[in-house]
This record gives sequence, C-alpha cells and structure tokens, in this order.
Amino acid sequence: MYSAPSIQKLLDELERLPGIGPKSAQRIAYWILNSKSSDALRLADAIVEVKQKVHFCKQCFNYAQDDLCEICASEKRAQDIICVVSESRDIPPIERTGAFTGKYHVLGGALSPLEGIGPDSLHVTELLARLNDPSIQEVIIATNPNVEGETTASYLARLLRPTGVKVTRLASGLPVGGDLEFADEVTLGRAIESRRAL
Amino acid sequence: MYSAPSIQKLLDELERLPGIGPKSAQRIAYWILNSKSSDALRLADAIVEVKQKVHFCKQCFNYAQDDLCEICASEKRAQDIICVVSESRDIPPIERTGAFTGKYHVLGGALSPLEGIGPDSLHVTELLARLNDPSIQEVIIATNPNVEGETTASYLARLLRPTGVKVTRLASGLPVGGDLEFADEVTLGRAIESRRAL
Repeated sequence: MYSAPSIQKLLDELERLPGIGPKSAQRIAYWILNSKSSDALRLADAIVEVKQKVHFCKQCFNYAQDDLCEICASEKRAQDIICVVSESRDIPPIERTGAFTGKYHVLGGALSPLEGIGPDSLHVTELLARLNDPSIQEVIIATNPNVEGETTASYLARLLRPTGVKVTRLASGLPVGGDLEFADEVTLGRAIESRRAL
Repeated sequence: MYSAPSIQKLLDELERLPGIGPKSAQRIAYWILNSKSSDALRLADAIVEVKQKVHFCKQCFNYAQDDLCEICASEKRAQDIICVVSESRDIPPIERTGAFTGKYHVLGGALSPLEGIGPDSLHVTELLARLNDPSIQEVIIATNPNVEGETTASYLARLLRPTGVKVTRLASGLPVGGDLEFADEVTLGRAIESRRAL
C-alpha cells in the first residue's frame, strides 16, 4: 500500500483507533476506497459533526448536544435518584437494562493515585452541589468493580455520608447464566457475603 | 447512547465498516469523542482526501494518485514480468515478500458465473493490450487459490496461450511453519502433486 501517500495517511489514522490493528486498518481503508464517495464522506461528516456539536452536559457531564443531555432534560426520569458512573460509556449498558429510570452523574474517571487522578480531577464538587436539591433521596455508585472503581466508591460513600442521602453500590456476585464452577474466588466470595434471604 | 443524535449517526456509520460490530463502533466513537478535535478531524480529512485524490492507475488499475501508480511509474521495477491479481489489496502482501520486482495488473475481481461476473467485468482486454509490448516475458497469475480464483487463472491461461508469453501460477502447498497434522486434505493433496526434487 506504499503506492499512494493519501492511502498511507488514511491507514496511519485508522491504526490509531482503539482495537484497530494494521490488518483491520487495511480492510477498512480498502472498504473506503471501494465504496461510493457519498458513503465514505458520510463517515467523515459524522466524525466532524460529533466533534462540533457534542460537548458535556452542564449538569451530569454526559455527552450532550444541547446544554443538558437528553436524560437530564427529560421530565419522565425520576428526579430523586442519581446514578454515579466513571465514564459516559458506562451509561448505555445501564440504560439497556431498563432497571434504572433516574438521572446520572459522570465523574470523568476513577480515583487512581498511581496515575495522579485525585478527587480534583473528577466531577465530585458538582455531584455535591447537585445533592443540595432536597428532592434527591438516593445516590447509586456504579463505578467499575475494580481497584480504582472500589476506591472511588469508598471515597464517595464517606464524602456523601454527612449529606444524609442514601448511598448504595451496585451488587457484586455471580453473573446470571454463569457457572459456579468457573467463578473466580473473589466474585464467589462476594456472592456469599452478599447472599440474599429467599 | 441514544442521547445525542450526532453520536448515534457516528455509531451507524462506524458499524457499516467491515469487521466493526456495535461494541467496536462504540469503543471507536468514545475514542473520537474523548480525543482532541485535531486528532479526530485528521481521520475525517484522511477519508475525504483519499476519496478525492485516489483513483485507478491507467495502466494496471491499482490505486494511484497520479496517472500511473508508483509501481508502474517506477523505472526500477522489472519491465518484462506482470503479476496479475484480483484486487489492489492483494498487492501489499506480495510486495512485503520482496520476491517480486515486476509490474502488476489488477483484474478488479475474479470470474464468478453465480454472481454474474464474467470476463467483461474484469480488466482482461487491458491485460491483453499490455502483452502487445514484446518485452513482456512472463505473466504470473496470482489470483486466490479458491474456486473463483482458480477459474479465473484457467481462463486467463487459455486466453494468453496464443500470445506465446510464459504463463505461471503461484504454488499451492503447505504454509511454511505449518503442521502436516493439521493441513486440510486439498492443500496436502496439492502439496504432494506439486512436490519438488531436492
């Protein structure tokens, strides 16, 4: 593919995308080369548009096209419960469950002393400010069940205690449809600790 | 991700790329959202540029930015041997071997009666025209070793016989570093048929 500098440039850009290696980049580049101009340019336009129009929601820091994201702007969502996530990308999987109808708050990361990410790097002050609204009854902390996520959850739980708002955490345990035999010991241990009455 | 229409549009476009499913599309979309504007726009520009500047080489139908692709324009390449491939994307793997220093000819597909691809859909006439040059000594047919590729190779071999040019085909056999135990019977059969004297 050395023959055309424009193709090499496209390959270089494609290879910088996450999960795209040289082979995938080549496959996509040839798809773009072979496809109708209008098809390829729609992709280019979509990239430009997303960078121009999408910014952070003023309230929850999810991605939004208006001042508020659709969830914050919606009157159908419960106003008394906030689900705190690390990143915007954690919202779609929660939405897909249909089990949560409240609002979100995106921290913009998780605490990680090793990477120099402290509370000041996260949207924590803004979360506290939102809790001044007396209608908020509960904060669900939905950070990832890994070291950084657990650290962030403990930190937030301690920080929010004085506000009197109920603070909860997503349950850890066996994945539904999973096999006891193949569960790792930490997950299984957590499932035993958090056993429910039947 | 339903929240921002621009993001949904980007996801839709990304999912149309080959090998990109909903999860990869989401990962790439978030990468684009999180990256600096200049980084994301470089990708968009590269797509636009490739569609504007790249077209087919007048001689071999490889992708090119000038009238001739770099290989056809090069004086360092052997002028007496042409390697015939189905698609432009078959050229980089051959180039990487360093085993071929001649010119190429891209057919633009392979014969497939089922899909209605006959000789007229391929750049066959143009190949014949190139063979009017008396300096051409050999044509290597490097179509894929599958049904369409083999059909195309037989067709071309028959068609080129009257020209008196030497026509050869890439060898089929065991992949280097492969295991006899795991070779499929067709490949192994071909390897036995084409055995070499040592």
